[in-house]
Amino acid sequence: MTKTISVLGPSGTFTEEACIRYAPSANIALCPTITSVGAAVSNSETELGIVPIENSLGGSVPETLDLLIDDPNLFIYDEFVIPISHTLMKKKDTVGTDIEIIFSHPQALAQCKLFLEKHFPTTQQVASLSTAAAVQDMHNSSVASAAIGTHRAAVIHQADIITENIQDNSSNATRFVVLARQDNKITGTDKTSFCVSFNEDTPGALHDVLGEFAKHDINLAKVESRPTKESLGKYIFLIDCEGHRNDKEISAAMNNIREKTSFLRIFGSYPRWDPHKENK
Amino acid sequence: MTKTISVLGPSGTFTEEACIRYAPSANIALCPTITSVGAAVSNSETELGIVPIENSLGGSVPETLDLLIDDPNLFIYDEFVIPISHTLMKKKDTVGTDIEIIFSHPQALAQCKLFLEKHFPTTQQVASLSTAAAVQDMHNSSVASAAIGTHRAAVIHQADIITENIQDNSSNATRFVVLARQDNKITGTDKTSFCVSFNEDTPGALHDVLGEFAKHDINLAKVESRPTKESLGKYIFLIDCEGHRNDKEISAAMNNIREKTSFLRIFGSYPRWDPHKENK
Repeated sequence: MTKTISVLGPSGTFTEEACIRYAPSANIALCPTITSVGAAVSNSETELGIVPIENSLGGSVPETLDLLIDDPNLFIYDEFVIPISHTLMKKKDTVGTDIEIIFSHPQALAQCKLFLEKHFPTTQQVASLSTAAAVQDMHNSSVASAAIGTHRAAVIHQADIITENIQDNSSNATRFVVLARQDNKITGTDKTSFCVSFNEDTPGALHDVLGEFAKHDINLAKVESRPTKESLGKYIFLIDCEGHRNDKEISAAMNNIREKTSFLRIFGSYPRWDPHKENK
Repeated sequence: MTKTISVLGPSGTFTEEACIRYAPSANIALCPTITSVGAAVSNSETELGIVPIENSLGGSVPETLDLLIDDPNLFIYDEFVIPISHTLMKKKDTVGTDIEIIFSHPQALAQCKLFLEKHFPTTQQVASLSTAAAVQDMHNSSVASAAIGTHRAAVIHQADIITENIQDNSSNATRFVVLARQDNKITGTDKTSFCVSFNEDTPGALHDVLGEFAKHDINLAKVESRPTKESLGKYIFLIDCEGHRNDKEISAAMNNIREKTSFLRIFGSYPRWDPHKENK
């Protein structure tokens, strides 16, 4: 049976492109927001969901982090990284390059900042809700417009491609996580993601938690703080470490951590992305 | 002489409102982006600049963090927090509440999510570059439109206010930093912000750095990671601690940290925001 995967839409987003690379034969259910992708998985409408979690230039995607913090039914089942390539396109019948407006998602505009400053220094930039929506906005615009989006969106919407790969940094890549209602089995090269918070600002509380990993020589891939929704100055820490939560040492570290924190949620253990093995 | 402060524009943004609260008599120079506020200060066009650095719901503002990491001329001179209140407004002559489009900045739309789901479940949401631009977009729209923005923007643009304080969480607040070409003097209740990175992923490297603070009972206000622009998986850690960099213990900790890291930049020491003393 063909699996159905919930994905951030509309058609032509990077997440859709990512899903096609990850699971070429899956059915794709397009959802309007990251939160609704999470809800579809959490409510068992689909088995899996794919959302972006981090971009090498733009940083973390707050909506995805909050989804994991807030929904106890959601786990990370897998992760993968795809390079992001931005395509500048214009409406099929636009003559010349006298573009008045360039539409894109604010993160995409930011990722092409130097290119735009050099080639379109005075052109108005207009924010769209996604790169796919930008291509739509370009089509609906009454003035000579361009959009920055995926190559796929240019093809879907039969737009004229002006330039490909206009991103400022060639190492622009996005990490996606595959959400499910359970995490993954031990493979030997795993990663575990979790979050912790503390009752009050005790000096050294975070240091104590990280110490549990240093003690066992467990590599931390990432530490990040998110403000709690209660107040500025109170944080939840999101931590990625190497290894599986059922590995003896990680399991011991987690038990010790549980006693040092007021809140601990393990988002799951899953195979660590290996850039040399693109198709898992 | 009246000071001029560079501020994220256009007129009617929260940053403008914040600047008026922080320095009621200052001249305001409106800049189009956060990066251009930083450049105005760095190039000595203005002495001070004000940019948002963190929101209690939306998290950090990546553009501000990158500005501090990248520009060695910029320092944090001060900080302050203001509560964010969102106002829903419509064009003066729009009849009834049959709104087809609601414009706002994506972060503002996210902060009013529950309100919008309850009162405007099927209304199209369109992203604008700022809440002030949203009010402009509402005015230029050819269909019955509304916008979410500041109370001040509603007044400036003579819009009809539908509802005030529509944000989902009453503790919604934004922290702003005042940028200058030097940091601030010791006041006794200070905060120091800095960033570090490491040559390679050595287990315990971050733990070691945090240990310098735990050793001296220095409270850490915040730890956050930002991906470096080189690749996913390599991070710069941004840390806030209590105290001034010229305090004996912090100065000693910084000297020890310098030896443990491949990159250390101190963004500055400045008076810690005191919510009980609104006008410093």
